[in-house]
Amino acid sequence: AGFPPCPPAGPVYPTVKVSGFFHLDTDWFDQNQANLDTVGDIQNSDGFRRARLAAKGKVADNVSYIMEYDFAISQARFVDVWLQFEEVAMLGTVRIGRWRQPFGMDELTSVREIPFLERSLIFSMAPFRQTGIGFFNNNEAEDMTWAASVIRYPSDSFGNVGGDNGGYGFVGRYTILPFYQDDGERLLHLGADYYFVDPAMNEAGFASQPEIQIVDSAGNIPTILSSVPPFINTGTVPTNNISSYRLEAAAAWGRLYVQSEAQWLQLDQIGGTNETIEGAYIQFRYVLTGEKLPYDRKTGVFKTITPFHDVKPCYGGIGAWEATARWSYADFNGAWLGNPATHPGRQLNDLTLGMNWYVNKFTKFQFNYIHAMLNDPTIGESNANIFAARCQLQF
Amino acid sequence: AGFPPCPPAGPVYPTVKVSGFFHLDTDWFDQNQANLDTVGDIQNSDGFRRARLAAKGKVADNVSYIMEYDFAISQARFVDVWLQFEEVAMLGTVRIGRWRQPFGMDELTSVREIPFLERSLIFSMAPFRQTGIGFFNNNEAEDMTWAASVIRYPSDSFGNVGGDNGGYGFVGRYTILPFYQDDGERLLHLGADYYFVDPAMNEAGFASQPEIQIVDSAGNIPTILSSVPPFINTGTVPTNNISSYRLEAAAAWGRLYVQSEAQWLQLDQIGGTNETIEGAYIQFRYVLTGEKLPYDRKTGVFKTITPFHDVKPCYGGIGAWEATARWSYADFNGAWLGNPATHPGRQLNDLTLGMNWYVNKFTKFQFNYIHAMLNDPTIGESNANIFAARCQLQF
Amino acid sequence: AGFPPCPPAGPVYPTVKVSGFFHLDTDWFDQNQANLDTVGDIQNSDGFRRARLAAKGKVADNVSYIMEYDFAISQARFVDVWLQFEEVAMLGTVRIGRWRQPFGMDELTSVREIPFLERSLIFSMAPFRQTGIGFFNNNEAEDMTWAASVIRYPSDSFGNVGGDNGGYGFVGRYTILPFYQDDGERLLHLGADYYFVDPAMNEAGFASQPEIQIVDSAGNIPTILSSVPPFINTGTVPTNNISSYRLEAAAAWGRLYVQSEAQWLQLDQIGGTNETIEGAYIQFRYVLTGEKLPYDRKTGVFKTITPFHDVKPCYGGIGAWEATARWSYADFNGAWLGNPATHPGRQLNDLTLGMNWYVNKFTKFQFNYIHAMLNDPTIGESNANIFAARCQLQF
Repeated sequence: AGFPPCPPAGPVYPTVKVSGFFHLDTDWFDQNQANLDTVGDIQNSDGFRRARLAAKGKVADNVSYIMEYDFAISQARFVDVWLQFEEVAMLGTVRIGRWRQPFGMDELTSVREIPFLERSLIFSMAPFRQTGIGFFNNNEAEDMTWAASVIRYPSDSFGNVGGDNGGYGFVGRYTILPFYQDDGERLLHLGADYYFVDPAMNEAGFASQPEIQIVDSAGNIPTILSSVPPFINTGTVPTNNISSYRLEAAAAWGRLYVQSEAQWLQLDQIGGTNETIEGAYIQFRYVLTGEKLPYDRKTGVFKTITPFHDVKPCYGGIGAWEATARWSYADFNGAWLGNPATHPGRQLNDLTLGMNWYVNKFTKFQFNYIHAMLNDPTIGESNANIFAARCQLQF
Repeated sequence: AGFPPCPPAGPVYPTVKVSGFFHLDTDWFDQNQANLDTVGDIQNSDGFRRARLAAKGKVADNVSYIMEYDFAISQARFVDVWLQFEEVAMLGTVRIGRWRQPFGMDELTSVREIPFLERSLIFSMAPFRQTGIGFFNNNEAEDMTWAASVIRYPSDSFGNVGGDNGGYGFVGRYTILPFYQDDGERLLHLGADYYFVDPAMNEAGFASQPEIQIVDSAGNIPTILSSVPPFINTGTVPTNNISSYRLEAAAAWGRLYVQSEAQWLQLDQIGGTNETIEGAYIQFRYVLTGEKLPYDRKTGVFKTITPFHDVKPCYGGIGAWEATARWSYADFNGAWLGNPATHPGRQLNDLTLGMNWYVNKFTKFQFNYIHAMLNDPTIGESNANIFAARCQLQF
Repeated sequence: AGFPPCPPAGPVYPTVKVSGFFHLDTDWFDQNQANLDTVGDIQNSDGFRRARLAAKGKVADNVSYIMEYDFAISQARFVDVWLQFEEVAMLGTVRIGRWRQPFGMDELTSVREIPFLERSLIFSMAPFRQTGIGFFNNNEAEDMTWAASVIRYPSDSFGNVGGDNGGYGFVGRYTILPFYQDDGERLLHLGADYYFVDPAMNEAGFASQPEIQIVDSAGNIPTILSSVPPFINTGTVPTNNISSYRLEAAAAWGRLYVQSEAQWLQLDQIGGTNETIEGAYIQFRYVLTGEKLPYDRKTGVFKTITPFHDVKPCYGGIGAWEATARWSYADFNGAWLGNPATHPGRQLNDLTLGMNWYVNKFTKFQFNYIHAMLNDPTIGESNANIFAARCQLQF
């Protein structure tokens, strides 16, 4: 029935590859008095932000899998755990399990490859990793990608969700590449994303830290402030459903890369008003040492830099250096049911300057200075200066 | 002293192989009012029932090992962790560590290879994985197997047990193959199992869900009913010791496979009567697409099906399809000390119809419809209809 | 600029190797009445003391890494997680992450290679694994090693530390080999160690079990005494800073190996007196079957024994046998702030006799008899006899 001919005998299945990476961070905080009053005294900290190990491979020519866990947060938590069927008629690749849902260019960029220590403020409004079934594909010219999923929502850190009152959702993303020259030296990317969810147990909530997050310290130091508190937080509100849109734009011009996204999210409160939260960011990357930042035409995201010259004794190379800047904005204002006293609507602006040092293809250091400007309806404006550094090793 | 000659130089030790599998389940519940009154309202759920990774291999010609962990239940728990010495004089293979003790044909069938989503109701009365030392062997004609262990009891999910008041036990199994024709096309298997334990801390208890178990949801959804409650449950009772017998019978006749077991367990209560709990099951499997279900003559269990034609674009195969049915019964009636009000003696009958779809050797989908009939001494008869599906990927 | 020539094309990076080991222990306790009164009734126990899996390898000619986790204690905890740059000018190897800090010959001997089940009593006063950055090196003649680190202190079981009030420290070690004959048949090792820490949150404390430690039983047996209680314990005391010295001496004379260390630690209490705790041990090893215990000249520690003849059917070998003895002493007396009633200053002497059986290079059994002599200021002298055995499998 028109099936393609079988491929020649390949590797003996199943194949397995072990991979992993860790993020070791150090963070310093300088808060003004109003900020101390608004969010509390955040302690300087050191620790492993992420520490992931994965087994991945293929069990047949057309079936691949991954099982990935993060050991950094006092319990081994699920990251990506899925299997996928490739070359499925009409649909392309069909995936079952838990993975990053197709929503957001920043979200779909691997955390090993994002240009800052954390994703932008609007990351808090994305569905991100959920358990479900979905498909993704691209056109033959590779200037168009699409993806859609049906998910269970919200799933916990172990991929589970339960509840008779709903608990389902839909997520989709569509991107185009209207302009692409010289193998990606100059390009323009545009995208649109949408999701709708009816949360299990009829509860939902959104919160964000100021683009920095100290690791959890659930171990033997019970008295420390274990993590950066959310600067903006709706609290848990009784929810019928949530719908949200996002727009993406990105461009490359020589060694300058710009990426921007904006999102609107409407939450239908049970027994309350419909409320909208929104946010946006724009970020700039400039590669000082001249390496190219590749763009993946099958998934519609930027990848990462491979240095021309590794830092090693025999070469004396300096690796690759990249300067970055980002402005992020999120407005979580609204008449939230639940506990408005403890979760007042707030607005947050973040300005970040950064430098990335790629020692070799698998090792990098990142440095971020973040100026967070918070506006609380009661306390008013406050700010915090944050300096953070990261050591990343991947394999 | 009559030792066999040394084998030729083999692989460089130690060898290591990484393997794993996951079970992603989705469950729907329909309970009548009496069942809601008896066990509470069970929520429809989705999640990872198991997610296991293992490292295994050999450290010498005669010494092999495994270290296997399950990441699905909010902490990485011990599964099989042992080393074994092979070709030991008189004893065969000697194993030290934590593993599935030699009791029960259903229990000794790998959870990747059982024909239903869960083992039968009498699984709740088996010692299953415990920490100890034991041996197993078979005769040269491979129509007889035997195994015995001395264990510490009861061990927790991390292989540990403590307590000065006992904490020891014995487990044994013996199987024969009185009839075996045409390379297993037609066969008859018979077996007998026994265990005796004196539990540490002088406490024991038995409980069973209705052959379905939603994963634990210890993550960020604190309010949901996190798991299927036990339908039958003795609670924790003060216990001197426990002794239990099981009988096994199984047969193959062409592509029809039948397996049945029955168990009696006597619990000697401290300060109370001796009580007996009992159960049995019979299950049928028929392979619609004609593949054979192999029987392992060294361990006395059925293995799994490998499809003639994988589901893949180039072949257009439909994989292998198998229809299944099971009736299970367990009677946990008795005058239980401890807390009889919360753990009344109950009887449970389960009727299951299922279908298994083997996509390829490493990927399968399973579908179960379970009709659970519960008899509570106070509330009387009630029932629940359960529909469940599983996606299994192994490597 | 005088860089060495590049090495020839090597393996394709990254390389990954999976390794691991487990310790399965069984412990029996016999306490006299005074000891029962002093520390409580310790239950006989069985369990996995350690169960570790690691991924390690290189990501470049000059960059290697490890990510190692221990699954034995109800959560997967961080062991070694680091990357290191090799052949760094002046410094030698530079390491970033979490690892065993350069303090103590016993501490720097791998737990797979220590001659007893646990390290000596003064292990409790070492910084051991902390998160930081450090370097280590040796001279070209390999009769001198040095190492130093800057650490964050104290870090928890996940490598994290937080707190604005200090939280930094320095650790260093220096060893020499004044006498080394016949490839290590006869040798003399001397060493000195130092550390200074200003603990985060201004709190610190020291405690030690009697050189035996049952695994944690955080699973399904909530009522047991989950671990051996500390016999000596300062409790948590308000602390400005801690400084500590250690001296090391070790010698080989044929198949007899002697190793001894002594440590002094001064704790500057906030609002209290400066207090000193101290301890020492000396241990003897004699290899009955004649194998040599190698000494590593690059790290200044003894390694482990490889049997001449493995225990296997074809050879009939008996493996290697080693007799051991150790005397340990620790004095935790002092006027401790915090809770002196529950943490009285005590002295502990431990006398251990042991036997190690190396079945093959990767499998061993260890047997320890420990006589612990405790002196409590209120209850007076008491003692406990402990018999413990371990099965170790590594790969």
